[in-house]
Amino acid sequence: MKALVFRGPGAIEWVEKERPSIQRATDAIVRITKTTICGTDLHILRGDVPTVTDGRTLGHEGVGIVEEVGSDVRNFKAGDRVLISCITSCGRCTYCKRAMYAHCEDGGWILGNLIDGTQAEYVRIPYADTSLYPIPEGCDEEALVMLSDILPTGLEIGVINGEVHPGDVVAIVGAGPVGMATLLAAQLYSPAEIIMIDLDANRLEMAKKFGATKTVNGAEGNAVEQVMDLTGGKGVDVAIEAVGFPATFDICQQILKPGGRLANVGVHGKPVELRLEQLWLRNVKITTGLVSTSTTPMLIKTVQSGKINPQQLVTHRFPLDQILQAYEVFRHAAREKALKVILYND
Amino acid sequence: MKALVFRGPGAIEWVEKERPSIQRATDAIVRITKTTICGTDLHILRGDVPTVTDGRTLGHEGVGIVEEVGSDVRNFKAGDRVLISCITSCGRCTYCKRAMYAHCEDGGWILGNLIDGTQAEYVRIPYADTSLYPIPEGCDEEALVMLSDILPTGLEIGVINGEVHPGDVVAIVGAGPVGMATLLAAQLYSPAEIIMIDLDANRLEMAKKFGATKTVNGAEGNAVEQVMDLTGGKGVDVAIEAVGFPATFDICQQILKPGGRLANVGVHGKPVELRLEQLWLRNVKITTGLVSTSTTPMLIKTVQSGKINPQQLVTHRFPLDQILQAYEVFRHAAREKALKVILYND
Amino acid sequence: MKALVFRGPGAIEWVEKERPSIQRATDAIVRITKTTICGTDLHILRGDVPTVTDGRTLGHEGVGIVEEVGSDVRNFKAGDRVLISCITSCGRCTYCKRAMYAHCEDGGWILGNLIDGTQAEYVRIPYADTSLYPIPEGCDEEALVMLSDILPTGLEIGVINGEVHPGDVVAIVGAGPVGMATLLAAQLYSPAEIIMIDLDANRLEMAKKFGATKTVNGAEGNAVEQVMDLTGGKGVDVAIEAVGFPATFDICQQILKPGGRLANVGVHGKPVELRLEQLWLRNVKITTGLVSTSTTPMLIKTVQSGKINPQQLVTHRFPLDQILQAYEVFRHAAREKALKVILYND
Amino acid sequence: MKALVFRGPGAIEWVEKERPSIQRATDAIVRITKTTICGTDLHILRGDVPTVTDGRTLGHEGVGIVEEVGSDVRNFKAGDRVLISCITSCGRCTYCKRAMYAHCEDGGWILGNLIDGTQAEYVRIPYADTSLYPIPEGCDEEALVMLSDILPTGLEIGVINGEVHPGDVVAIVGAGPVGMATLLAAQLYSPAEIIMIDLDANRLEMAKKFGATKTVNGAEGNAVEQVMDLTGGKGVDVAIEAVGFPATFDICQQILKPGGRLANVGVHGKPVELRLEQLWLRNVKITTGLVSTSTTPMLIKTVQSGKINPQQLVTHRFPLDQILQAYEVFRHAAREKALKVILYND
Repeated sequence: MKALVFRGPGAIEWVEKERPSIQRATDAIVRITKTTICGTDLHILRGDVPTVTDGRTLGHEGVGIVEEVGSDVRNFKAGDRVLISCITSCGRCTYCKRAMYAHCEDGGWILGNLIDGTQAEYVRIPYADTSLYPIPEGCDEEALVMLSDILPTGLEIGVINGEVHPGDVVAIVGAGPVGMATLLAAQLYSPAEIIMIDLDANRLEMAKKFGATKTVNGAEGNAVEQVMDLTGGKGVDVAIEAVGFPATFDICQQILKPGGRLANVGVHGKPVELRLEQLWLRNVKITTGLVSTSTTPMLIKTVQSGKINPQQLVTHRFPLDQILQAYEVFRHAAREKALKVILYND
Repeated sequence: MKALVFRGPGAIEWVEKERPSIQRATDAIVRITKTTICGTDLHILRGDVPTVTDGRTLGHEGVGIVEEVGSDVRNFKAGDRVLISCITSCGRCTYCKRAMYAHCEDGGWILGNLIDGTQAEYVRIPYADTSLYPIPEGCDEEALVMLSDILPTGLEIGVINGEVHPGDVVAIVGAGPVGMATLLAAQLYSPAEIIMIDLDANRLEMAKKFGATKTVNGAEGNAVEQVMDLTGGKGVDVAIEAVGFPATFDICQQILKPGGRLANVGVHGKPVELRLEQLWLRNVKITTGLVSTSTTPMLIKTVQSGKINPQQLVTHRFPLDQILQAYEVFRHAAREKALKVILYND
Repeated sequence: MKALVFRGPGAIEWVEKERPSIQRATDAIVRITKTTICGTDLHILRGDVPTVTDGRTLGHEGVGIVEEVGSDVRNFKAGDRVLISCITSCGRCTYCKRAMYAHCEDGGWILGNLIDGTQAEYVRIPYADTSLYPIPEGCDEEALVMLSDILPTGLEIGVINGEVHPGDVVAIVGAGPVGMATLLAAQLYSPAEIIMIDLDANRLEMAKKFGATKTVNGAEGNAVEQVMDLTGGKGVDVAIEAVGFPATFDICQQILKPGGRLANVGVHGKPVELRLEQLWLRNVKITTGLVSTSTTPMLIKTVQSGKINPQQLVTHRFPLDQILQAYEVFRHAAREKALKVILYND
Repeated sequence: MKALVFRGPGAIEWVEKERPSIQRATDAIVRITKTTICGTDLHILRGDVPTVTDGRTLGHEGVGIVEEVGSDVRNFKAGDRVLISCITSCGRCTYCKRAMYAHCEDGGWILGNLIDGTQAEYVRIPYADTSLYPIPEGCDEEALVMLSDILPTGLEIGVINGEVHPGDVVAIVGAGPVGMATLLAAQLYSPAEIIMIDLDANRLEMAKKFGATKTVNGAEGNAVEQVMDLTGGKGVDVAIEAVGFPATFDICQQILKPGGRLANVGVHGKPVELRLEQLWLRNVKITTGLVSTSTTPMLIKTVQSGKINPQQLVTHRFPLDQILQAYEVFRHAAREKALKVILYND
């Protein structure tokens, strides 16, 4: 089969590779019909993720059709259409029992990292019963690809950790793919205002189409002051960091009301300064996290019922064998006005 | 001034009455600009509420303009536009401190019950600081009249007690005004399905316009079976009783999934049979309650931002001095295709 | 091996039976070292549980030593000391993913019911990884036998469902084994008062030793009035039903404060009358449920650290081959002053 | 009357001062019978709290007897024994309605800060109905003095924010008065382990008497390593910072398990470094806060029932007119083996 493999920092190749096979009784082999590229894949390309080694097939998102299952797989059989979670869950360890699959002792984020991933014609999924989800009839499969990682990330790490409630004022810093997914997910809880903050006017324009009620362009003046102006000097109930830099974290901590929540979604490469000399008495909550995809069943239902339309995030589509071009587009996402690209292999 | 007074079971009159005045330093006098009639007012008319005595001005809902405040009122001054809560809260007792204003030791539901109410040109509001809410600029006042009682009732006692979550399947039994308010409030939390159950085809048609995804007409066959069919035999996550009869409660308890919640909103006049021999092992939760209007600030924000449009519930409008006609329409609500009537006095 | 088998209503026998063997890759065979008898076993004996058929080995509680594991068992190996949950959990279905193991689609309460149980020298445990718990060094094994069913039942269905908080006033109706387990579990949350209600003076005396701060003997006068007297007419924050009769449920619903919680733990054979004409406006919550044993890991830690001492519940001990005598004692528990009996096979 | 007044950094005096009188209808005058000194008072002495000006009577804790009440005070009358909250709550603003009294728009921490405080023979308490608590018969008044500030601080900001559950492993950094109060409060929720961390062997010894299960002396080696050793390399569920330095915060962030909570109680004078490059994927929660004393009613009940014994924190007692000596002792708390001092004026 064909697969996109990592060849060390800066290098990926679309190569012929042996098709994966069942290794344990709980495995399934899935034929990929749609996959996508994640911001994390770009981090890997830059050499930021040392656990990814030469020859690894990348990718941790996608939908497909079950080709074969191990003898102990009970929820799935060959021919089933499935959604692949970016998080592998054994279902048996302490963390899985608490629905913290991100920290699964024999799983977590391993696809396209410690084992071969989904940017290929076939993928082996360990613990298939607890790491795959059945696709209901008539569900938009492009929408579902967004449920492998980006939408549950926005929902669990941004919206649920940030405790977004009806009537709240929410700010999201970063209008890239994850920030946009967070914007969509936040609307499930009917906040009164969602203020989107970015430096790119085009993305802020898209954010308005996706439901942002106000936008702040940090290139046009101090973002903190703009948010305080928009909120009558009160600040926000929830600030969601969806970038991963000290400066964007700093915006978040400066715009919180007493009682506010700061949900960090961004991947950070260095420490940040926490203004505890101001925050200690403001009764705030700061959360961090890697997605567990524990909300995937709920998200499938909201997609099915049309309460959320994550297919809006898809801006570009390519056949799977043009994945190198898709990477080029995604690497220049702002220039290409790209959010998520779909690779299809139907 | 003019007021609508109770004259014993079956009798109400629109009479001249002395204008209320400040009795305690925490009182405010409000000139009513809009009020409405509640199902509870009809209960009073039928003689079902013995605490209401001859001569009482009815009504516990409305918006208006502050005319005068006592010396210890700090949040309001003459000229302020205000929303009146149906629940008077002293802000100082054990229950108020727990935000259970319904059980306030010197308040609760007293307007139009133990003290004169809002179906009049003026009303005295005790504990004004904690029983009135400021109306923000540009808010639809008809929408806000729905926030005095019916919308927070649907939200607090139906939706929040019933723990409606995104993706849930919700059934609401009773498509009268409270059921419809519950239907609107439920959508703040993006359930996947809302099944509305009633005997009146017209109301079920309206429910669809208000966001019900499915309807069940109990006149056309067993309601429980219809719900089970619509849910593939699984039942619902949340069943909300918005009628107040043993038969409607019984529908609710029979359609619950394991882990389901039954939120009782209806006012019951007699005991019901609880099928504990079936339910004991189904891990269900049953809740009851009188509204506290603790969600009013949040609801004002959702109205202001357009996330909820309770003015849809208003089907009829009358000048305040035609309130007797309004009662006639509201008493024959199904025939008149009425939900809520507005009495205006601008 | 020897096992206690059901021979139809009223009949049990201690017989030679074939030793169980691995049937599926996820099974384990456990040699029982300690087991006990549950109130449910007496229900089975009376013929109240039609799913239990002739020849079934009874029992769903116990600790033991793993004898053999299937090829897909990863958490356990031969020689491990384990605690057996009364609830079998597949770890893969919708309910297991929500930690509602009681409703597992391929498990739940099946031991000593749909498959052979623990009142035997050996037992087969399906889905061993998610249905067994490792026993830490130095833990009292009699205490742990209480964690198979009775203590998590009291904790999950009584205390957690009833939302016992520090400072609360709690009433427990029924000072039998489950009521006593609930009494122990409630103290993990430091309520101010625990009022134990029963008809048996001896059991009430024991309850005081286990931490009840007050007792009410229903044989000495109206229990509701006694509770109201003890609480200065206010009633209780939490009422826990641990008997299973309409009369005991009725006590609970009459002693609740506004905002109170009624947690039903008792197994009910018929419907009860719910006083909704009084309760609809009292903002109460009523819960039901079968234990999921999702709190077992937490309980093991509290036992290990001495925060809870469930071995107090053990009043009698017999070698396993005297189980028929143990049943006799347990069937006349009040007369014998018995709570839990231990059958040992060390 | 006599009062302890602030005379600028480093200077306090015990002087004759005019007795306070009712200024608003919601005020009460309380004769102080017992008060104490807080770590915050030492901060004021050092000149760290610029809002405290020359001539201010210090103190924000105490119990006493109501001398006189304003015309709108309804919960109290002359002669009532009362507990004074360190937080003044108007009961009417947005924050008070959410039980966030710390952020009361006309109150918060004002006693001994913006208005005269409790280290005097008499004090004026604004909003008496919502800022005082009645003392039940037979309650230990020294215990109750601990409920003005230190115990609710430990409970709300440490234990409740940190979500301490039965079976948890908790670490508390700082065995000073606030850390000790947190240690007592944590035990209301039955954690399996409480590891106390400090540099003072004497205080660690006291911590063991108060319920710590393990202690770590940071003077005897790296505290982080010691905690990791004590927890088998796993870290803790809850880390509570009760000191207020970057170094102690840093210990907390390094010992958290995935899913752990870091509750900051300490008062910080400068920013800290947040290790977000490690924590972003560990699903942790960090909270900050000033106490609201919303748990005071619950704490009074737990004191009354003996579930908690905060009088243990009292190490020294002085008559009120020896308050200058008491300050000397409290300023050298470690040397004097002091935790809390009581000033009595009975």
